[in-house]
Amino acid sequence: MANINLKKLAEELNLAISTVSRALNDSHEISQKTKARVKALAIKRGFQPNPYASSLRQSKSKTIGVILPEIENNFFSQVMNGVEDIARQKGYHVLIYVTHEDQALEKEVMQLLQNGRVDGVMISISNTTRNTDHLNAYHNTSIPLVLFDRVNDSIAVPTITTDDAEAAYQATCLLAKKGCRRIAFLSMASALSISIRRQSGYLKALKKNGLAGQEIILECGTVDETNKVLIRQLLSKKPRPDAVFGAIEKFAINTYQVCQEMKIRIPQQLRVISFSNSPAVALFDPPLSSVVQPAYEIGKETASALFKLIDKKMLLPAENRQIIPSHIIERKSTL
Amino acid sequence: MANINLKKLAEELNLAISTVSRALNDSHEISQKTKARVKALAIKRGFQPNPYASSLRQSKSKTIGVILPEIENNFFSQVMNGVEDIARQKGYHVLIYVTHEDQALEKEVMQLLQNGRVDGVMISISNTTRNTDHLNAYHNTSIPLVLFDRVNDSIAVPTITTDDAEAAYQATCLLAKKGCRRIAFLSMASALSISIRRQSGYLKALKKNGLAGQEIILECGTVDETNKVLIRQLLSKKPRPDAVFGAIEKFAINTYQVCQEMKIRIPQQLRVISFSNSPAVALFDPPLSSVVQPAYEIGKETASALFKLIDKKMLLPAENRQIIPSHIIERKSTL
Repeated sequence: MANINLKKLAEELNLAISTVSRALNDSHEISQKTKARVKALAIKRGFQPNPYASSLRQSKSKTIGVILPEIENNFFSQVMNGVEDIARQKGYHVLIYVTHEDQALEKEVMQLLQNGRVDGVMISISNTTRNTDHLNAYHNTSIPLVLFDRVNDSIAVPTITTDDAEAAYQATCLLAKKGCRRIAFLSMASALSISIRRQSGYLKALKKNGLAGQEIILECGTVDETNKVLIRQLLSKKPRPDAVFGAIEKFAINTYQVCQEMKIRIPQQLRVISFSNSPAVALFDPPLSSVVQPAYEIGKETASALFKLIDKKMLLPAENRQIIPSHIIERKSTL
Repeated sequence: MANINLKKLAEELNLAISTVSRALNDSHEISQKTKARVKALAIKRGFQPNPYASSLRQSKSKTIGVILPEIENNFFSQVMNGVEDIARQKGYHVLIYVTHEDQALEKEVMQLLQNGRVDGVMISISNTTRNTDHLNAYHNTSIPLVLFDRVNDSIAVPTITTDDAEAAYQATCLLAKKGCRRIAFLSMASALSISIRRQSGYLKALKKNGLAGQEIILECGTVDETNKVLIRQLLSKKPRPDAVFGAIEKFAINTYQVCQEMKIRIPQQLRVISFSNSPAVALFDPPLSSVVQPAYEIGKETASALFKLIDKKMLLPAENRQIIPSHIIERKSTL
């Protein structure tokens, strides 16, 4: 069989090469009828687009950028697995920037990525980010942007998140159902959408369970030693909280460490549940009950949405605001 | 004070701008005497080099690339913290590529990075990499390369590693000292230098403790379920091994999971120790004894060596082959 390429397909169809290319890429600029004609001939002639060759032709970078707030966290590494599975299918490379929860660095990296080094950007916002001008500025560039997990609803780009409020509500209800009445919530000190949603789910559950006004909210941060000081104070109070709900896994680990020191038995004296995506928490003493986020799926859906934008396809309304549910795994820490 | 810049310094010193720049960057191409003259005037005139402005002048990318085999691993995230601390001081951005232990992807990424998008590359080799032509090819480019942790000694570039053989020797001796006689080593199925070194340390310790020829080596991989099948077989043997030494944390987690299923008590029936950099293993039931690698320091030293090469400074022989010791933390799993 002779070597078939876009040019030959275009000649045989009597179409422009760019039309054939866009038809094969399912662009919304091409009619369904033309797409069908082009695809039928492409299949007949055994045409296989070479993603890297097409990169040279379009002088695209064939690279997407992923901006993460941190990488010491199973959630983000699982997200990356989903992203890379999709990128590989598309023949794209993925480069990762870590902002270390620093708004200034986030802004700098966003600017850096506007120079054509990537074809699209996905970002999970740093927890110190208050001003989102650098995110809004992407509207004036031709580089598609998608937000995931830690998003900001005021920016008109697609977002892929989990149902943080509902998951936090369910986790708090689980503690209340076990008889807990002094449920402390260890929250992230930040203005992030996910912090606000998780806290609102916690408060809603307290209300639902006749504990309105009984909230105990402790703002924790990124430094283990500081968190442990705060948790030590919390667990020294009389009466002591009878349950701790961690907004992130780190806070549950800090709680376990303090309980070890203070010889507080989990779950007999303190029930613990936390957002966590690490399978190793099942080996903890006692195994930690977890709210597990759909990290891999978030990565996959975010990358899929981004590639649709890069390929100039339309997103359906449901694709513009995707919310993928989390689920709870009960283990001995809430027995 | 008038705005001072490289040009004005050069004029006043009657030197070329490039000479002044290289003197300030401590290049070995410039004599000590000239460096002293230049630096003295720079201080006198209050000259502050702007790292990002200098990026524009030299049309450098002011970015380094880090190629990691995986990111679901505390070791590599701690390495990255060390790298980024140094990069920040130098006004550099860091971009990360993940090869997912895939030699083909590693090769592709190495080629991609030769096009000037980074000023230097550091890499930890994938465990499927057998052919190192793509690493050797960097000699023909002007892009500095440094290897860390998983290195290949046949490539003439700086390497920063830990003392894997010695650490594995010490860990195995610890098990022997506790009376273990059937010590299984869960090794990475790979041709990596670190795998070979860890295994050689294990074998040396067996010999030293009168257990020559008693080795039990189980090759594990990246898939949890496959590892668990292998470990289940291993622990079903009669007589059963009385200790397990994991070459990486994942294998210790798989061992704990199988012990939970098979109701094998750690450490009473099986002592366990493993290479691990995760503080959370102290919360396991029972807490896991660990060989802790100097991950942060490896990141820092690797980045420092890379920046010396980028700045065209000479490395001392000791800087070309750095070996930073690991240390063992004994916990209840080897009691």
